[in-house]
Amino acid sequence: MRIEIICTGDEVLTGKIVNSNFSYMSQKLEDFGLAVHWGTTVGDDREALLEAFRFAASRSDAVIVNGGLGPTIDDLSQEVAARAAGVALVLDEDWLARMEAFFRRRGRTMPPNNRKQAMLPAGSELLDNPLGTACGFALDIGKARFFFTPGVPRELRAMLENEIIPRLLRRSGAAMAVRLKRFHSYGIGESHADALLAGIEALAPEGNVKLGFRAHYPQLETKLTVRAADAAAIERTLAPIAAEVRRRLGNFILAEDDETLESVVLSALGACGGSLATVETFTGGLIAGRLAHLPGAEAILRRGVVAPDPAQLRAMLGIAAEAAEEAAAAAAAAARSASGASHALAVVVVLEEGSEGTDLGGGIYVAIATASGTALRRARIFGGRDWIRLGAVELGLDCLRRFLRGLPIDERIDFEKR
Amino acid sequence: MRIEIICTGDEVLTGKIVNSNFSYMSQKLEDFGLAVHWGTTVGDDREALLEAFRFAASRSDAVIVNGGLGPTIDDLSQEVAARAAGVALVLDEDWLARMEAFFRRRGRTMPPNNRKQAMLPAGSELLDNPLGTACGFALDIGKARFFFTPGVPRELRAMLENEIIPRLLRRSGAAMAVRLKRFHSYGIGESHADALLAGIEALAPEGNVKLGFRAHYPQLETKLTVRAADAAAIERTLAPIAAEVRRRLGNFILAEDDETLESVVLSALGACGGSLATVETFTGGLIAGRLAHLPGAEAILRRGVVAPDPAQLRAMLGIAAEAAEEAAAAAAAAARSASGASHALAVVVVLEEGSEGTDLGGGIYVAIATASGTALRRARIFGGRDWIRLGAVELGLDCLRRFLRGLPIDERIDFEKR
Repeated sequence: MRIEIICTGDEVLTGKIVNSNFSYMSQKLEDFGLAVHWGTTVGDDREALLEAFRFAASRSDAVIVNGGLGPTIDDLSQEVAARAAGVALVLDEDWLARMEAFFRRRGRTMPPNNRKQAMLPAGSELLDNPLGTACGFALDIGKARFFFTPGVPRELRAMLENEIIPRLLRRSGAAMAVRLKRFHSYGIGESHADALLAGIEALAPEGNVKLGFRAHYPQLETKLTVRAADAAAIERTLAPIAAEVRRRLGNFILAEDDETLESVVLSALGACGGSLATVETFTGGLIAGRLAHLPGAEAILRRGVVAPDPAQLRAMLGIAAEAAEEAAAAAAAAARSASGASHALAVVVVLEEGSEGTDLGGGIYVAIATASGTALRRARIFGGRDWIRLGAVELGLDCLRRFLRGLPIDERIDFEKR
Repeated sequence: MRIEIICTGDEVLTGKIVNSNFSYMSQKLEDFGLAVHWGTTVGDDREALLEAFRFAASRSDAVIVNGGLGPTIDDLSQEVAARAAGVALVLDEDWLARMEAFFRRRGRTMPPNNRKQAMLPAGSELLDNPLGTACGFALDIGKARFFFTPGVPRELRAMLENEIIPRLLRRSGAAMAVRLKRFHSYGIGESHADALLAGIEALAPEGNVKLGFRAHYPQLETKLTVRAADAAAIERTLAPIAAEVRRRLGNFILAEDDETLESVVLSALGACGGSLATVETFTGGLIAGRLAHLPGAEAILRRGVVAPDPAQLRAMLGIAAEAAEEAAAAAAAAARSASGASHALAVVVVLEEGSEGTDLGGGIYVAIATASGTALRRARIFGGRDWIRLGAVELGLDCLRRFLRGLPIDERIDFEKR
C-alpha cells in the first residue's frame, strides 16, 4: 500500500514551526508496518492544495492530510477536498451538535464561524476528535482514500492511533493485531546493538517480527514490531524474543515501553522507602531537572546542589579533596548527611584542556553515597561540551539505576574512551 | 521566483529524525524575502528521487535539494541529478584534491568510497563546503536551477547562507543587500506586539522594511527584514525604525540579534563585578542550567540550590517563613550570605490545587537579594505544569535582567492572570 502525507499550513511551510507532526505520523505508521512513500508540504493556498491533492490522488492508495480544519478563513482543507473530489460541502448535523455541546460544557455559545468545521465533502466518513472542534474525515479522491486530520498535535495523535491506523491496517489486508515492544538502553550504540541482536527476527518462524532502532543520544530505543492474528498469538510470539533481547542487551536495558530512566530511578527509590540528594557541576541542574518534574518527585527528592565547577563545589561543601573523584565522593557524602536523604548522587565533570569543538574531551566522576559507603564510577567521553553534558547526566542517572537494582555500575559503555 | 525544497533520506521520510533542516531553510529564505512554495520529502530511492526532481523541474525556478551527498551506496543525489539532467557524472579533480587534503590533515588516508563525493553531473557549478567532504553543486534541470546541499545541519547552514542565498538573490533581481534585525522579548504575546507595532513598516517610505514575528513561548522574536541597495542604505533605513521598535516594546525587549536573556544577565553581572547564587523549586535546575553552560559562567555563578517544593526549601535553608513570598525572600537572602555572591535569585513556585491539564494554575514568587535588600515580584500563570515551569524560569531570569538594568521588575506581562 502506497501511503503519502500532505502537511498544510503557512506556519509549517515558512518554517515558523518545525514539522514534528510529519515525523510523528511517519514513525507511528512505521511502527505498525505501514511505510510512508512521499511527503508534501504546502501552504494555506487553494491552488497549491488542489495540486497536491490531485497529484497524490493519481498515484497513491492512502493519503493523510494534516491541518487546515480550523474555523478561520485560511483553513481550506474541506473546501479544497470537495473541489478535488468533485462534490459539494454539506452540513454534518451530528458534528454541529457535538460542537455546540462542546461550547455549552465550557459555559460559552458557539461562535458562528465554527459552523464551518461541520461542513464536510458529501460522502465523507467522519473521524472522531474527542479533544477539539475539528473533526476529521475520510474521502475517496481519485484512486486514493484521503484521511483529513487536525493540526493540533494531541488531536492528531489520538485520531491517527484510534481512527486512521485501524482503517489502514484493514485496507492493507494485514494481520489483525500489531504490537510494538520497546526497550530503552544507555551505553551501546546503534550498530553495536544491531550486531548483538543479529538473527533475532529469525527466531519468529513466521517472519512476523521486525527489529528496528531509534537512536537519540545518549539513549537508544530498540523496537520489535509483532504482527499476528490476535493478541494471544502476539504474546506467544513476543515472549521468547523479548526474553532473548533482554538476555543479549543485559544490564544496558534501563526501561521498557513507556518507562523512562528517571521514572525507573524514582520508582526504585520509592520502593525501598528511599530519598535522594543530587550534586552537580557542569550539568548545571539537568540531573535534578530530569527527576523534579515527575509526579511524586516531591516525596523523594530532598535537595539539589549545582556548582559551576569542582573548585566552587569544594568551597560550597567545605571539601578539601583536590582530585575530582575524591571531590565527588566527599560531595555525595556531605549532601547525604546534610539532607538526611538515604541516597546522594554526585556527578562532577572536568573538561580537558586544549581541544575544542567535537574534539573536546571530559572526565565524568560519579559518586553514590549511602549509609553503608560510597560507590564510584569514572568515564572519559569525547564529543564537545553538549555531548559531554548529556552523557554526564545519563551516566549519573544510569549508575544510580544500576546501583538501586544491584547491578554493576562499572560496565564499559560504547561512548567512553579509556 | 518560485522556490521548492526537496528533503531526501530514509531517516527523514520514516520520521527517525525530525526534519528541522526544512524549517531552518524555509525560515532563513523567508528572512531574505525569498518565499518557499512547496516542500517534498522522499526516501533514498532512485525512482522517487527522479520523480521529485522532474516534478520540481517542470514548474519551479529554483529547487534546493537536501541530503544524499554522502559516500555510501544509499546516497543517490548526484547520480539521480545527472539522470534527470540527461548528463554524465564526471570527476571534479579540484574537489577530490580538497578531500584528500581534508583527510591528510587528520592523519588519515581517504577511503576509496569518498571518491564518489567528487563525481558531479557534467556542467555543474561547485558549491563550497568548508566543513565536510560533501561538496554542494548547482545545475539546471528543466527550467529550474537546482542547488544540492549536504544533510549535516551545520554544513547545510554554511552553504545556504554563503553560497545559495546570494545566488538566489541575484537570480531574483532583488536589491543587493538584505539585513535581518531581531528583537527578543518576554511578556508580550504575538498579537499584542503586532498591535503595538502597527504601522511600523510604513515608516520606511520606500516599502523596503518587512515586519515579522516568531513566537517560541515564553519568548517572542520580532524581526525586521530590510532590503536596500547597499549596507549604508540599509543602516539609514533601519536606524529610525529600530529606535521606534525599542520605544514601543520598551522594557520588554530583553536582547537583540544573537544575544540571549541568559547572556545578557551574565554580561550585566560581569560588568558590575557581580556574582550569583540561584535557588529554585519546581523549575528543578532549569534556571541554573540556562546560565551554567555559557562561556565564563564559572567565574560568576557561585552556586545553585534546587528544592522540589517550598516545604523542602524551608527545611534545607532553615527558613521559618510560611508564605511562599516570604520564603522566596528568605531563601534568596540565605543563599546570598552562604555563598558570598553579590546577587541571589530565588524562584519559588506554588501549584494551585484542583484543576489539571492546561487549566492548572501556579503562583510564581521571585526574590532578588543584594547587599542593600531584597526585591520581590509575584505572578500567577495558567496553562499546565510545563507552561508554568517554562514561565517561571523566564520570569525569574527576566526579573534579574530588569533589576540589573535598573528597570521596573513588576511590569505586567500578558501571560499572567491577576
